[in-house]
Amino acid sequence: MFKNCLENVRNTVPLVHNITNYVTVNDVANVILACGGSPIMSDEAEDVEDITSVCGGLNINIGTLHKTSIEAMFRAGRRANELAHPILLDPVGAGASALRTKTALSLMTELKLSAVRGNISEVKTLARGSGTTKGVDADVADAVTEESLDDSVAFVKEFAQKARCIIAVTGAIDLVSDGKLCYVIRNGRPEMGKITGTGCQLSGIMAAYLTANPSAQLEAAAAAVCMMGLAGEIGWSRMQEGDGNSTYRNRIIDAVCNMTGEELEKGAKYELR
Amino acid sequence: MFKNCLENVRNTVPLVHNITNYVTVNDVANVILACGGSPIMSDEAEDVEDITSVCGGLNINIGTLHKTSIEAMFRAGRRANELAHPILLDPVGAGASALRTKTALSLMTELKLSAVRGNISEVKTLARGSGTTKGVDADVADAVTEESLDDSVAFVKEFAQKARCIIAVTGAIDLVSDGKLCYVIRNGRPEMGKITGTGCQLSGIMAAYLTANPSAQLEAAAAAVCMMGLAGEIGWSRMQEGDGNSTYRNRIIDAVCNMTGEELEKGAKYELR
Amino acid sequence: MFKNCLENVRNTVPLVHNITNYVTVNDVANVILACGGSPIMSDEAEDVEDITSVCGGLNINIGTLHKTSIEAMFRAGRRANELAHPILLDPVGAGASALRTKTALSLMTELKLSAVRGNISEVKTLARGSGTTKGVDADVADAVTEESLDDSVAFVKEFAQKARCIIAVTGAIDLVSDGKLCYVIRNGRPEMGKITGTGCQLSGIMAAYLTANPSAQLEAAAAAVCMMGLAGEIGWSRMQEGDGNSTYRNRIIDAVCNMTGEELEKGAKYELR
Repeated sequence: MFKNCLENVRNTVPLVHNITNYVTVNDVANVILACGGSPIMSDEAEDVEDITSVCGGLNINIGTLHKTSIEAMFRAGRRANELAHPILLDPVGAGASALRTKTALSLMTELKLSAVRGNISEVKTLARGSGTTKGVDADVADAVTEESLDDSVAFVKEFAQKARCIIAVTGAIDLVSDGKLCYVIRNGRPEMGKITGTGCQLSGIMAAYLTANPSAQLEAAAAAVCMMGLAGEIGWSRMQEGDGNSTYRNRIIDAVCNMTGEELEKGAKYELR
Repeated sequence: MFKNCLENVRNTVPLVHNITNYVTVNDVANVILACGGSPIMSDEAEDVEDITSVCGGLNINIGTLHKTSIEAMFRAGRRANELAHPILLDPVGAGASALRTKTALSLMTELKLSAVRGNISEVKTLARGSGTTKGVDADVADAVTEESLDDSVAFVKEFAQKARCIIAVTGAIDLVSDGKLCYVIRNGRPEMGKITGTGCQLSGIMAAYLTANPSAQLEAAAAAVCMMGLAGEIGWSRMQEGDGNSTYRNRIIDAVCNMTGEELEKGAKYELR
Repeated sequence: MFKNCLENVRNTVPLVHNITNYVTVNDVANVILACGGSPIMSDEAEDVEDITSVCGGLNINIGTLHKTSIEAMFRAGRRANELAHPILLDPVGAGASALRTKTALSLMTELKLSAVRGNISEVKTLARGSGTTKGVDADVADAVTEESLDDSVAFVKEFAQKARCIIAVTGAIDLVSDGKLCYVIRNGRPEMGKITGTGCQLSGIMAAYLTANPSAQLEAAAAAVCMMGLAGEIGWSRMQEGDGNSTYRNRIIDAVCNMTGEELEKGAKYELR
C-alpha cells in the first residue's frame, strides 16, 4: 500500500545523499524534507564516500555535470553499492550532449542502480545507447500517450529487465516498471512542466522512498510518482488569480509537506499492467 | 510592437543555454519558463558546445565565475557565433574584481555579442576598459537620473556603436540602445533591488526575446526590459501586509508568467530617443 | 540594545562576501538583503581577494565544499584578516566527513575568526577536534535542553575562550557566548528544521550584524539569532491552511524584511548567564 510507503518515509526519516545540479538543488532539498526525508548534498570527490556512508540512499542527477562531479558520482556510487544503499539515477539531458549520454550510460554499467527516473526521451536514449533529445524536455514525438501506451509499457518493461533496475518514465502518463509489472500512473498537471525541476524533485522524493522501503522497491517508486503528481493537483487547486509558476512551485512542495498516507492512497490514480 | 515580441517567445518557445551564477540560477530558469522560453544550464567546458548546438540562444552571466566556467563561456560563445545564435552578456560585478573585469572585456573582444545588459557601474567599467564598482550594485554616483539623462543616453549610444551590439543599462531609468536609437524606459519599482537576481532574471528573459525575434533585436531587448519592470509593478500591486522580498520575488515571476502581449503593450512606459 | 544592532545594519548596508554552499545560497542572499545588508558571492580563488576587499565582512560556509573553494576560503580569510573584517564560519556537516572536519578545524587555526555558528553536534566536533555527526542535522543525544542547559552553557563558554571567538550554538535553545557571557535564547519554532538552510540564513544575517556593529560583537551575534528565531515565529503565525515548508521559507524571509528595531527588542526572548 502506498500509505505504508509514505509512512515509512515519515517514520524513519531516511538520510539521502544527493549529487545533483545547482539549478534545482534547493527545491530538491526542501521537497525531500517535505516528504519526510533528510537531504545532504556533497559532490566533491574527496567528500562523497564519507557522506554516503552516513546516509541511507543516493540520488545522482546529471543536470549540471562537471568533470569533478562525475568522479564524485562514481566514487559515491561504488561506496553506496558496498553498503547496499539504493541508488537512483536521474539522467537529465541524456541525449542532448555526448558527455551526458556517455556519463549516464557509464553510471548504469558500472554501478548497480535501484532505479532510473527520466523523461521518455532521456530513457529512450539510454535504452538505445545513444540518441538526441531537444534540451532537457521530452521530445513530443516520443511522448507516452493513450495511443502509444501498449508499446510504451512494453518498452519500459523490456528496458527494466535489461537494465535490472526500476525504470520510471514520467510525463503526461507515468510508467514505473521493474521488468515484470508496470504501474501506469495518471496523476499530475501539465502546468508542472512550466516549473523548473519538478522532475528533479520527484527523483529526490523517490530516492527517499526507496531508502525507507527496502522490501517494496517497485511500490515505493510508484508511490513517489503518485505523491508528486497528486501534490501537483493539490497545489494547482490552491492557485489564485494572478498566481503563476513561482507560486505553483511553492504550493507543490507545500502539498508534499502536508500529504498524509490516507490522502496519497485515495488520490493515487494508477493501474497495474 | 512589443506585443509581437512577447508572442514570438510564447509561440516559438526558444531554447536558451545559460552559463550563469549559482546564486540566482533557479530564478533565471523559472523566469525563462514564465516568459515562454525553455532554459538549459550547462557550464562544463566539455558539455557546452553540444548544449549550445541544440539551443537557439546563449546567456552568459559572470556572477560566480570559476576558472572552469570561463573556459566554458568562450567555447559556448564561439559555437554560438558559428551558429549565428544571439549571445547576451551579463557582466555581474565587472569592476569589483580584476578577474570579472578582464573576463567581461575578453568576452566582448573575442565573441560577437548581440547584447550586454548590466547596471550603469558595470557598463561604465566595460566602456572605460577598467574601473571599480562597489560589489554587485550600481554606484549611486553613476546612477541614471532625470538630470543626467541626456549624458547617459549619449554614453549608451556611443558605447553601443563602439561595441557593435545592443547595450542595456538598467536601474531606476533603463536605457537600451543599438547605437542609433535609445529606448528610455521607466517601468519597475525600487523595491526590486531588495531581491537578489532581478537583473539576472531580466538577462534570461532578454536572451529568450532576442532568440525569438531575430529580425527585431533592439525592440526585443527593450520589450524584455519593459516586461520585467512591468512585472515588478504588477507583483508589487499584489503584495499584502506582512509580505516581504521573498514573496515579492515569487509575485514578479508569477506576473511574467501571466502577462499577455496586450498587457505588455499597454503597460510599457518608454520613449525613443 | 538589539534595536541598535538592527538599525546599524539597515543604516550602513554592510556588504558581505559569502563563500557558501550552492544549496541555500539564494536564500542566504535574499535574507541578507532582507535584514538590510548587501550580499556578494564569489568562491573562485583568483576572485575572492578582490571581492573581499570591497566588502566589510566575510561569511564562510562549508556546506558543499570543493577543493577549489577551500583554497578560496583561506585566501579570502587571510585578506579579510588583513583588513580587520569580521569573519563568520558556519561548519556545516563538520563531523560528517573527514574533509569537512579537517577544513573547519584548519580555518579555525589559520584564520582569526569573529564567530562560529553551527548546531551542537558540529560545534562539539570542533571543540573535540574530531567526531561524527549524522549528516547536517544535530544529533538528538547532543541537544541543548533545559536539563542539560548548565553543562551546555559551560561548554560553550569554555570553547569560546579557547577558540577566542564568539561561539553560537543554535537549536531548540540557542547559546551565544564570547567566553565571558552567554546569551540563552528561546526564540524560534521547531518547524524551521523542515526548511533547508535556516542555519545558513542565520549565518548570513549574523555576518551582516557583525559587520555593522564592530563595537558590540557579542550583542550583534545574539541579536541576529533573536531576529532569525523571531522571524520564524512571525512567519509561522502567518501560515494558512495548506501551507507547508516552502511557503514557510518565504514567510520567514519576509518577516526578516519587515522587522523593525522595536519589534526585535520586544520579541527577543533571552537571558544572560
